[in-house]
Amino acid sequence: MARHVFRCPLRWADMDAFGHVNNVAFLRYLEEARIDFMFRLAPGEGAASFTGGSVVARHEIDYLRPLVHRHEPVDVETWVTDISAASMTVRYEVKDPGTLYARAATVVVPYNLTTQRPRRITAEEKAFLEQFRDEGAVAA
Amino acid sequence: MARHVFRCPLRWADMDAFGHVNNVAFLRYLEEARIDFMFRLAPGEGAASFTGGSVVARHEIDYLRPLVHRHEPVDVETWVTDISAASMTVRYEVKDPGTLYARAATVVVPYNLTTQRPRRITAEEKAFLEQFRDEGAVAA
Amino acid sequence: MARHVFRCPLRWADMDAFGHVNNVAFLRYLEEARIDFMFRLAPGEGAASFTGGSVVARHEIDYLRPLVHRHEPVDVETWVTDISAASMTVRYEVKDPGTLYARAATVVVPYNLTTQRPRRITAEEKAFLEQFRDEGAVAA
Amino acid sequence: MARHVFRCPLRWADMDAFGHVNNVAFLRYLEEARIDFMFRLAPGEGAASFTGGSVVARHEIDYLRPLVHRHEPVDVETWVTDISAASMTVRYEVKDPGTLYARAATVVVPYNLTTQRPRRITAEEKAFLEQFRDEGAVAA
Repeated sequence: MARHVFRCPLRWADMDAFGHVNNVAFLRYLEEARIDFMFRLAPGEGAASFTGGSVVARHEIDYLRPLVHRHEPVDVETWVTDISAASMTVRYEVKDPGTLYARAATVVVPYNLTTQRPRRITAEEKAFLEQFRDEGAVAA
Repeated sequence: MARHVFRCPLRWADMDAFGHVNNVAFLRYLEEARIDFMFRLAPGEGAASFTGGSVVARHEIDYLRPLVHRHEPVDVETWVTDISAASMTVRYEVKDPGTLYARAATVVVPYNLTTQRPRRITAEEKAFLEQFRDEGAVAA
Repeated sequence: MARHVFRCPLRWADMDAFGHVNNVAFLRYLEEARIDFMFRLAPGEGAASFTGGSVVARHEIDYLRPLVHRHEPVDVETWVTDISAASMTVRYEVKDPGTLYARAATVVVPYNLTTQRPRRITAEEKAFLEQFRDEGAVAA
Repeated sequence: MARHVFRCPLRWADMDAFGHVNNVAFLRYLEEARIDFMFRLAPGEGAASFTGGSVVARHEIDYLRPLVHRHEPVDVETWVTDISAASMTVRYEVKDPGTLYARAATVVVPYNLTTQRPRRITAEEKAFLEQFRDEGAVAA
């Protein structure tokens, strides 16, 4: 039931000519959070784990409040829902304490880079994901 | 009932370490198509038009096929649905003839950069958008 | 003695919060011009040509005038100097007719991605480069 | 005589299709180090300080060793040389203990964003810069 929190550093150039963090930069923050979660935190950093490849099948993101560059990182809270045989949904909130900037979800498909084909989630990966599963939160 | 086609140039660095155009780069392509549509094509490039500011409230994108860098642009076909008083949905297909790479939608809210507040769609903007309205296509 | 002209498309997000094309985006334009020159124009797009890999050993760039996003591409004029056994210098001017935005130079080293080591310029590559050699221009 | 060390976070997407941090991403790291140095560390974060605007007039960068994405930041060591009435040179080494990835220099010109013109370095800014002046290091 835990959530993973990635402290995501901003870059000054993430802002666009309107002086806000550009909407596309948020997707980069999600990628960084996902990589921290699936590549660093997940067990078995090898060809047989997520590090060996995964593909984004879908993104959804709602922008709730503008974000401006500052020197402190922003929190990307991450958890998992809809774990199936060959896909899962990573859910995120980009936020500071008390302020929610964006809410998002990514459907991720594990991928075998060698065969260039999707592959099934392993038992070891599933056990890892279950620790961060939180289906109820979706309704919130 | 027309659709706008933006011939979107790729950049070599849009590819990531997996050798495919990175999923985040697709959102950049959507932005370029939207800017071509709303800033260049839309009438009255002035403070009173979309050029004066607009905000992305939501993105949805489905990735259907991997895209690899090449010297030729990729087509981003663009049309509009759900035009309301103060928002609209821009829909896209990123494709080559016969090949669909991604399907996406963006909820756009016109924005007054001076007052930093959302504003209503003007009659002139609405008339422009109606030319590219295609509600039926969503069901496809 | 010819120079290669790459018509480089800008992206709206190349601008930063100061409302100008960010200095780092210019390096991206140079990369695009170099790739057009060395990957598309150079003969023999195969493992034995530049496409098989090359490394940037050094950049120098002087910024002369600010550039603002517009829908038309900017010209990146490209030529070659200092061709040696295992390196060459690509020189550039980023400009519109009558306006020079930046002048730059990149030392490029052909690279064998398989062995992960620099390699010598082939006779075929050298013959290609000689067509775009223009040592005198450097003094200008 | 001190040097400023910025612990620069990498992003996974800084890598290109060759599997190394792309040469252009290094310029982004320099920007982040410069912003940390001139915007955060420099005194008087207001319109009258560097935060009020500055322009890059020139970059030079030598790439010495390839860098691959990892979860730990890379050090960007920063100091100053050639402080004149209206410009200064920021010098950098991008490195880990014992490993130098790149050595670079940027000529920075303080800029008045309101008048859109270069301006002189203030006495307060000069006093700040002198603390990080290290002319001798250039010869090394």
